[in-house]
Amino acid sequence: MKTRQEKDSIGTIDVPADRYWGAQTERSFTNFEIGDQRMPLEIIRAFAILKKAAARTNVALGVLEQEKSDLIGRVADEILAGELDDEFPLVVWQTGSGTQSNMNVNEVIANRGHVLSGGSLNDAKKALHPNDDVNKSQSSNDTFPTAMHIAAYEMVVSNTIPGVEQLRDTLRAKAREMESVVKIGRTHFMDATPLTLGQEFSGYVSQLDHGIKALKSTLDHLAELALGGTAVGTGLNAPEGYDVKVAAEIADLTGHPFRTAENKFEALAAHDAIVEAHGALKTLAASLTKIGNDIRMLSSGPRSGIGEIIIPANEPGSSIMPGKVNPTQSEALTMAMAQVMGNDVAINIGGMTGHFELNVFKPLMIYNFLVSARLIGDASRSFDKNCAAGIEPNRNRIKEHLNNSLMLVTALNTKIGYDKAATIAKKAYAEDTTLKEAALDLGYLTAEEFDAWVKPELMI
Amino acid sequence: MKTRQEKDSIGTIDVPADRYWGAQTERSFTNFEIGDQRMPLEIIRAFAILKKAAARTNVALGVLEQEKSDLIGRVADEILAGELDDEFPLVVWQTGSGTQSNMNVNEVIANRGHVLSGGSLNDAKKALHPNDDVNKSQSSNDTFPTAMHIAAYEMVVSNTIPGVEQLRDTLRAKAREMESVVKIGRTHFMDATPLTLGQEFSGYVSQLDHGIKALKSTLDHLAELALGGTAVGTGLNAPEGYDVKVAAEIADLTGHPFRTAENKFEALAAHDAIVEAHGALKTLAASLTKIGNDIRMLSSGPRSGIGEIIIPANEPGSSIMPGKVNPTQSEALTMAMAQVMGNDVAINIGGMTGHFELNVFKPLMIYNFLVSARLIGDASRSFDKNCAAGIEPNRNRIKEHLNNSLMLVTALNTKIGYDKAATIAKKAYAEDTTLKEAALDLGYLTAEEFDAWVKPELMI
Amino acid sequence: MKTRQEKDSIGTIDVPADRYWGAQTERSFTNFEIGDQRMPLEIIRAFAILKKAAARTNVALGVLEQEKSDLIGRVADEILAGELDDEFPLVVWQTGSGTQSNMNVNEVIANRGHVLSGGSLNDAKKALHPNDDVNKSQSSNDTFPTAMHIAAYEMVVSNTIPGVEQLRDTLRAKAREMESVVKIGRTHFMDATPLTLGQEFSGYVSQLDHGIKALKSTLDHLAELALGGTAVGTGLNAPEGYDVKVAAEIADLTGHPFRTAENKFEALAAHDAIVEAHGALKTLAASLTKIGNDIRMLSSGPRSGIGEIIIPANEPGSSIMPGKVNPTQSEALTMAMAQVMGNDVAINIGGMTGHFELNVFKPLMIYNFLVSARLIGDASRSFDKNCAAGIEPNRNRIKEHLNNSLMLVTALNTKIGYDKAATIAKKAYAEDTTLKEAALDLGYLTAEEFDAWVKPELMI
Amino acid sequence: MKTRQEKDSIGTIDVPADRYWGAQTERSFTNFEIGDQRMPLEIIRAFAILKKAAARTNVALGVLEQEKSDLIGRVADEILAGELDDEFPLVVWQTGSGTQSNMNVNEVIANRGHVLSGGSLNDAKKALHPNDDVNKSQSSNDTFPTAMHIAAYEMVVSNTIPGVEQLRDTLRAKAREMESVVKIGRTHFMDATPLTLGQEFSGYVSQLDHGIKALKSTLDHLAELALGGTAVGTGLNAPEGYDVKVAAEIADLTGHPFRTAENKFEALAAHDAIVEAHGALKTLAASLTKIGNDIRMLSSGPRSGIGEIIIPANEPGSSIMPGKVNPTQSEALTMAMAQVMGNDVAINIGGMTGHFELNVFKPLMIYNFLVSARLIGDASRSFDKNCAAGIEPNRNRIKEHLNNSLMLVTALNTKIGYDKAATIAKKAYAEDTTLKEAALDLGYLTAEEFDAWVKPELMI
Repeated sequence: MKTRQEKDSIGTIDVPADRYWGAQTERSFTNFEIGDQRMPLEIIRAFAILKKAAARTNVALGVLEQEKSDLIGRVADEILAGELDDEFPLVVWQTGSGTQSNMNVNEVIANRGHVLSGGSLNDAKKALHPNDDVNKSQSSNDTFPTAMHIAAYEMVVSNTIPGVEQLRDTLRAKAREMESVVKIGRTHFMDATPLTLGQEFSGYVSQLDHGIKALKSTLDHLAELALGGTAVGTGLNAPEGYDVKVAAEIADLTGHPFRTAENKFEALAAHDAIVEAHGALKTLAASLTKIGNDIRMLSSGPRSGIGEIIIPANEPGSSIMPGKVNPTQSEALTMAMAQVMGNDVAINIGGMTGHFELNVFKPLMIYNFLVSARLIGDASRSFDKNCAAGIEPNRNRIKEHLNNSLMLVTALNTKIGYDKAATIAKKAYAEDTTLKEAALDLGYLTAEEFDAWVKPELMI
Repeated sequence: MKTRQEKDSIGTIDVPADRYWGAQTERSFTNFEIGDQRMPLEIIRAFAILKKAAARTNVALGVLEQEKSDLIGRVADEILAGELDDEFPLVVWQTGSGTQSNMNVNEVIANRGHVLSGGSLNDAKKALHPNDDVNKSQSSNDTFPTAMHIAAYEMVVSNTIPGVEQLRDTLRAKAREMESVVKIGRTHFMDATPLTLGQEFSGYVSQLDHGIKALKSTLDHLAELALGGTAVGTGLNAPEGYDVKVAAEIADLTGHPFRTAENKFEALAAHDAIVEAHGALKTLAASLTKIGNDIRMLSSGPRSGIGEIIIPANEPGSSIMPGKVNPTQSEALTMAMAQVMGNDVAINIGGMTGHFELNVFKPLMIYNFLVSARLIGDASRSFDKNCAAGIEPNRNRIKEHLNNSLMLVTALNTKIGYDKAATIAKKAYAEDTTLKEAALDLGYLTAEEFDAWVKPELMI
Repeated sequence: MKTRQEKDSIGTIDVPADRYWGAQTERSFTNFEIGDQRMPLEIIRAFAILKKAAARTNVALGVLEQEKSDLIGRVADEILAGELDDEFPLVVWQTGSGTQSNMNVNEVIANRGHVLSGGSLNDAKKALHPNDDVNKSQSSNDTFPTAMHIAAYEMVVSNTIPGVEQLRDTLRAKAREMESVVKIGRTHFMDATPLTLGQEFSGYVSQLDHGIKALKSTLDHLAELALGGTAVGTGLNAPEGYDVKVAAEIADLTGHPFRTAENKFEALAAHDAIVEAHGALKTLAASLTKIGNDIRMLSSGPRSGIGEIIIPANEPGSSIMPGKVNPTQSEALTMAMAQVMGNDVAINIGGMTGHFELNVFKPLMIYNFLVSARLIGDASRSFDKNCAAGIEPNRNRIKEHLNNSLMLVTALNTKIGYDKAATIAKKAYAEDTTLKEAALDLGYLTAEEFDAWVKPELMI
Repeated sequence: MKTRQEKDSIGTIDVPADRYWGAQTERSFTNFEIGDQRMPLEIIRAFAILKKAAARTNVALGVLEQEKSDLIGRVADEILAGELDDEFPLVVWQTGSGTQSNMNVNEVIANRGHVLSGGSLNDAKKALHPNDDVNKSQSSNDTFPTAMHIAAYEMVVSNTIPGVEQLRDTLRAKAREMESVVKIGRTHFMDATPLTLGQEFSGYVSQLDHGIKALKSTLDHLAELALGGTAVGTGLNAPEGYDVKVAAEIADLTGHPFRTAENKFEALAAHDAIVEAHGALKTLAASLTKIGNDIRMLSSGPRSGIGEIIIPANEPGSSIMPGKVNPTQSEALTMAMAQVMGNDVAINIGGMTGHFELNVFKPLMIYNFLVSARLIGDASRSFDKNCAAGIEPNRNRIKEHLNNSLMLVTALNTKIGYDKAATIAKKAYAEDTTLKEAALDLGYLTAEEFDAWVKPELMI
């Protein structure tokens, strides 16, 4: 591999000749051969946005030349267009401040900017200095958390929420379609009093509605940006007014209501906004698991399960059992939600463990957050498209179950009291007869009364 | 032990002669000898409130006699006054719907009510029937989740939030007191640029402010009550209008803005409100852990640690090392918060695992929620009273650290560039000299420039 | 309340006049009003054992008078007999080294010993000094982890393992009883090829066998005792040979193979043995959850579920639905196991967070460990006695499911290939016919071949 | 994109013309657009091993032609050589049995084998049938768990254990090097009695020794293979003796002591071996976190921290603070271990949630396991190479701390009693003097006695 030499405050180091990254990226790449989880591209792109916004703000406040800002902006746009994806090779398991990923962006912008301005990677002096220009008025300590919030916010509003809403809308439509399909209820996994299939599905809709609302209410904290705090939150080396202005630029560039964090010390030292918002994500994960499990179980069979709904057959279910169909979307969904639950713990540990002026579990936290937010959005959409949208009631099965149910006896509580009703149900079960036969046998009521009082369609 | 016989739909069973509980409580007591975690009294009291509210509503809607309602209300008041605490012996690890705890309350109210009305526990016929009267228009499936929300809401607003606010207020006062104590910052646990001790503490205040806000925003979901859904959410056997009216009664009795859940199917089948609110509790736990750790570490020493603050000496720190003082409040706080993190996982698993019309991890979920909510409130208060309120800066130590710091060199970035500033810092470190000496040696600036540019008090 | 004055190195403090505890207990009691989780009595009793063992060893090594050792031993025996339970009021959420619980034991032994020797609690000079005598050759830092290991080991071998073994034995007997009950299998919650009910249960037996084995293999680490390490692991102030000898005394007193830890620095600074052993407990929790869920689901119905086994009806299942029977033991079991999973996270966080020479999450860790170990033992026994022992196959239901199954077609793979077999199954499903009808219709084989090849009893 | 048509029991589907995968892979690829976590290549390679072993065994037992087996083996070898990595595009979030990944391997082997035998991908009839030949005597339900165990075992013994051992060996060497560097101990993060730096490090060595031992003791369960259980554990469609023989083949191919699982029902329905082994991994994660934190804190400074050890400076620590050096390897290590803790919860949830004859959280479980096992190995090696190996004591700092320590007073306990010793320490602290000055002032002992008794080098 051809190399060139790059230099930082530690010394010189060989870097692949055709890469835009510099000495610090190369050091991190070599020093952290851990796992294969790359720093998410969402973070790299959030950095591109903030670098551009910082450059513009620096110009506006008179501390950077317009020309340099333009160069920075051009490279940022290339990063946003995905043209430089291969220039960001670092893994998540690096310095806990994400310093080397910030420097990776600084170096790539400086070097690529220099090339764009007509220079060569081998020039001793470059058009842009990674620290003095690209990182101007910034520190890793305020840029990385800013990138975290930009990336998290963006993922939540562009993927998670629309994904869940799409599924919610389908479930709501299904709830309406099936609002008069009376079926047996189940509590404790045991037969209970009836409800409609639509009512059952309306519970899922309500869960997702609440979950989306809870998630949205965490966005306000995520909208706070650390930028302007620089090294420890005091804003050292950033010009007056920079924090407010740069947040406005970012809001402008992203279309999201970002604003400067009122307290920069918190914004660097803790990532409670991530912990809080992931708390809402894990709540959605609990809801989606419940829904996925219900669908899996309601569709079980085809002959020896519950079988009250029919789900689409998307793929052969078994490599050995011919003709088998499985609730695979439920499986993918519930596995993904189990991952969200695990990620929650990783995030909690990261969030608990900041020290003094800086939390150094930043890459861990945002990596897990983005995985979760994406899994919830993607899995909801997949479940919607490949399963929920195709759900149909199995009316024969539903009717059979309903008619057999012993729990219809509950309708008699208010007529003959709980104790007598219980006696009827227990007798019918023991003798494997109908409730009506048992009731008449016991002489607790007449056939007419039974027919008048025990009507599933009135019990919903 | 003297016993009397009690009966339920399973048959008769011996019950301690002087206990108000009946057959179902006794069965559960015998059948679930698991652990020693009792059903929290907060749940029993929430049940008392809702039984009273249900009785009143039943009267208003014409399905219960006023006299029965009055009896129910009298026993409920005794429960609320703590007079019957020993009558609720069941453990958390029972049926997952909490049915036997509901029946425990029903039986105690029925039997105690009968005695209050002049009867004897041995009478064959009682003034109140546990199911037909006390449980009228109710099911365990809607009462238990209602009791969960009442107890959770109450604990959060009467213990958790005031506890955290008390600590927050103290920290805010400390932040103001110490707003001009300039000290070295620390990032990556390493010396960094300066800030004031007040600024450092303001970060804690901001964390708690955000955490309280996040917790408060979950109250709205907790304010929804399942009552009126009865067995599966349809409201079978409850009179028209009951749900809205009984929620209003409960709001009236508690002073909290409870309202009936719009969707009762969710309210029985899932406890996302608990998962969601505990997500806010765990966020506070992360914040409090950060704060507790910082205080522990800032006060470390007395001679060979960081030692920048002095905390109260509340007890001898060691059974073997005389004169030792330890940050014991930080230890209790961080242990308690680790418990909250564990509880969060237990709650998540419970919340994920509901099936069909009923989540049967109810006692687990509310037990863990109440433990967490109380630990956060109690531990915050304890930490406040026995530690935070007595924190004082160790000014000598702070000044010594500040003067020695190499990171003051950061102030030179905008004057001589990052690279030269780095050379100064590295030289001073390697030669164990001051920054100024190194800077002058290198000839990068004059002594006058150094003194003018490197002023910690201007770097905050 | 009548009080007397007690003194420690901080000063004097009022203590309830009739309590044996002293100044440090009282301080901790006052300073940590957090939650209501008391320091487990198992820890107090483990302390009694180790105090007695330490006293004997001190005598043997010539650093304590025989008379003092006898006194200490007498009080220790009273503690072990449960006679002094009310003398240990401290909560879990105290200093993270458990120092005040060690001092609580030291003070109670010193004061009670003084009374046993004829003195009065008000005497200025006592027969035993809590630090110089009772705590001789010890520190909280080595006694508390020693008590942790004694209590944990004891709970595991006397409760957890026998509880799980009892359930395992019942399941094994059931597996044998039902070894020829051929039934439909279920994969993905969907009908699959057959197996016997006994085979299904044998899987549970194998899980528990493996789980017990894994748990037992963690006992070796738990058998290592920290005692003799004193303050930081060096053994300062303990006589030569003390560590080995005191461990032998404890082994003798408990009947368990305790030995001194080879490395005392680890034994104070980390509690990996607890983390490791709880890793085995959580593995059992996963197994028991699987088993509990299977039983819950196999017994579902009575009419509209799977219903292949019948479980005992132990209590009325519903306060509103008469005659309902629920899988309440499965519910208690799976709730308790969810708690174990939560406890695991609390323990992990505690185990991760030791600093330098001392882990200060000790009370948290042992509290959670003991809760888990007890829940697993208790819940296994309860599940065994009240559910597993009474499980019976529902032969009619099993036969009906088996005969209807489409997955019997798998037997044809090796005769006609997967693709044709799939066509048969799909046709039978679509047309709601039997496999045989579909197979003959398709002309893939003769009726005789079908009968010869598709025999569920040969497919197991 | 050019496509060809492929067919399965669902119907025909377009597949990229030049890909070896078939219809089922394509369906899964399309139906599960969830996240970007690919099925780990370790699983694909484990499948290659087992397909080869199954083919050989099938030949030996007379159910497959030698020629087909050879073809299967040739493709398997190509997979193992990494030549077909791009042919396995499926994500983790698919069917929970991993069926489509099994079919992906079956299809690639069948199609590539056909091409190797001279055929074309467009031929209607192929030399190998993915189900009837490549999957012969197998089901996804037994192959996937077999691949899980092969991949997990291999990762643990080839990456995790050697990585941890490498670090352990370095720490042991350091412990010996520094065995006489007497330094202050710290308990509760506060100054305590002395020990040597070598003793401190020996605790880390002991932690890792115990952790490795615990991990090794879980390998026995991982060595059990499900293969031969086929669809539900009964071994339907597999020839007599197949299970034992195929396990021996796999043992032979891998060099690891794999053997057939005694109970196949467990082996399909539960993955307790994964839960158990990950319990050992998380124990190591706790140990490594403790070690990483200690190193981070011991090296803190350079001027205002603890600073008793010096760690290598591998990269510029800050983008804004020139000359800063950070404990970045500790940060990467502790972040990675937090991930392991999160993964543990995901695995627990997966492990708890199997139903009946099949656990369908398989891909989730093995994905998390492999991530953890690799992170522990990689991060240990990185920490070793880039940090631990270069650790040096900062002798000046250590001596300064030691000489200042008040806790040396503990040596006086056995001479003058705890209470007087405490008085000395408290006086020295309050008056900021030395212990000796305070002791002499109080007249508790003579200067000669003090010098004779208080010798740090004798306190270790």
